[in-house]
Amino acid sequence: MPLTFTPIPKIPLIQPGDNLADIILTAITDAHLAIEDNDILVLAQKIVSKSEGRQVNLSSVKPSEKAVELGKQADKDPRLAELILRESREILRVRPGTVIVEHRLGFVCASAGIDHSNVNPPGEKGADTNADDWVLLLPENPDRSALEIRRRLKLLTNHRLGVMIIDSHGRAWRHGVVGTCIGLSGLPAVVDARGKPDLFGYHLRITFVAAADELAAAASLVMGEAAEGTPAVIVRGFPYPLREGSLKELLRDKKHDLFR
Amino acid sequence: MPLTFTPIPKIPLIQPGDNLADIILTAITDAHLAIEDNDILVLAQKIVSKSEGRQVNLSSVKPSEKAVELGKQADKDPRLAELILRESREILRVRPGTVIVEHRLGFVCASAGIDHSNVNPPGEKGADTNADDWVLLLPENPDRSALEIRRRLKLLTNHRLGVMIIDSHGRAWRHGVVGTCIGLSGLPAVVDARGKPDLFGYHLRITFVAAADELAAAASLVMGEAAEGTPAVIVRGFPYPLREGSLKELLRDKKHDLFR
Repeated sequence: MPLTFTPIPKIPLIQPGDNLADIILTAITDAHLAIEDNDILVLAQKIVSKSEGRQVNLSSVKPSEKAVELGKQADKDPRLAELILRESREILRVRPGTVIVEHRLGFVCASAGIDHSNVNPPGEKGADTNADDWVLLLPENPDRSALEIRRRLKLLTNHRLGVMIIDSHGRAWRHGVVGTCIGLSGLPAVVDARGKPDLFGYHLRITFVAAADELAAAASLVMGEAAEGTPAVIVRGFPYPLREGSLKELLRDKKHDLFR
Repeated sequence: MPLTFTPIPKIPLIQPGDNLADIILTAITDAHLAIEDNDILVLAQKIVSKSEGRQVNLSSVKPSEKAVELGKQADKDPRLAELILRESREILRVRPGTVIVEHRLGFVCASAGIDHSNVNPPGEKGADTNADDWVLLLPENPDRSALEIRRRLKLLTNHRLGVMIIDSHGRAWRHGVVGTCIGLSGLPAVVDARGKPDLFGYHLRITFVAAADELAAAASLVMGEAAEGTPAVIVRGFPYPLREGSLKELLRDKKHDLFR
């Protein structure tokens, strides 16, 4: 069976308090698309964060001394540096223009995933609103966000779905960002392929497949990064059985990480 | 348009000297599939390597002193360690069971990409053949392999395609392997999204998208890792224009890599 990634068009700008599941179902219907059992709904972090009111106006942030220092080292607004510190467990690398952290959610990413692009000011846009001051934090608990959206979709459609939230992450060693899972519900994040014999009866060396990240990568490609972006994608044909899953499966603990 | 990944079934065991393009076209026809302009053919490293005769019997390998030492540190056969050394520019990390290298092709991976699973002995299987002794090196020059396959497919079908060769790589920070591009021809490896305004007119922070790796990830998911594996996938709906491309686009040079 082919694996397909279908972008859901015409999702409106999301505001704090919006019910994402309802909005996405409407967009699916309007586009004459459908969802089926075992489909996986992949959502860009931005729309989840916006619906959860994770917008922050930098004018409301008071940078600590540590943030002022980090801002200097990284050539970043000290108020943004303050938010990066608050959202991180540990600062791993700092260079002008770059701060790599272990996010409080456990993964490694740049700027704690805080985003400046595509952040519409929440609510009505007043004349004095400076959109440039708004940034967007990641969802507080993306696994929980995914679970809530999945439950609502189950209630509305009676379909058994997986739901995944993704962001674009840079990587060690390789150039360019790739779509990466930051939270999920109802699908395996990592598939255990240990002990499955190969064609010649050997046991596989490759033991764990980061299936959710493999889906996130192609879903991100379909979403696009810029103005033409569609922040939600239906995935059909995932080749493994759905089950409960969580971000933790994808995180390598620090002491087993040779590159930190 | 949806992005689709269609596995090509019933590709036979590949032997040195086999013409992969012809074999794959036959499999496509037999499966009543088709290829179209702008499709991308994704091939597992194994079938490309096998067709190029990259099988090595460990009994033919004489380990150097350095390889004996590496074998001890890594708890690996010293003859395999010898091959890892020959295929690498630099050994980055060694732990029991694990050798992470910069491959001579420039990317970072485990065991120089040398594979023990799914390696059928080349040619007829003699009674004294110990399949366990055969390992498989990566193609000598995967960009060139992809180009040759692409040219042959163009000749046979007159379609303008991209061709990509992938392997499963582990990653810093995150658990599980993901499909990763190790060579390509006729498609962009990295897409430059700099300067494209976002929905609110900002310029994007995310500037380079590792499009080939994003495709490789989902293609790998469709291929499967074990006995059910299908080592070739047709990708349709790639959202960027095809152009010449090369692995080099995906490699972060050492001095700009904060995690090596």
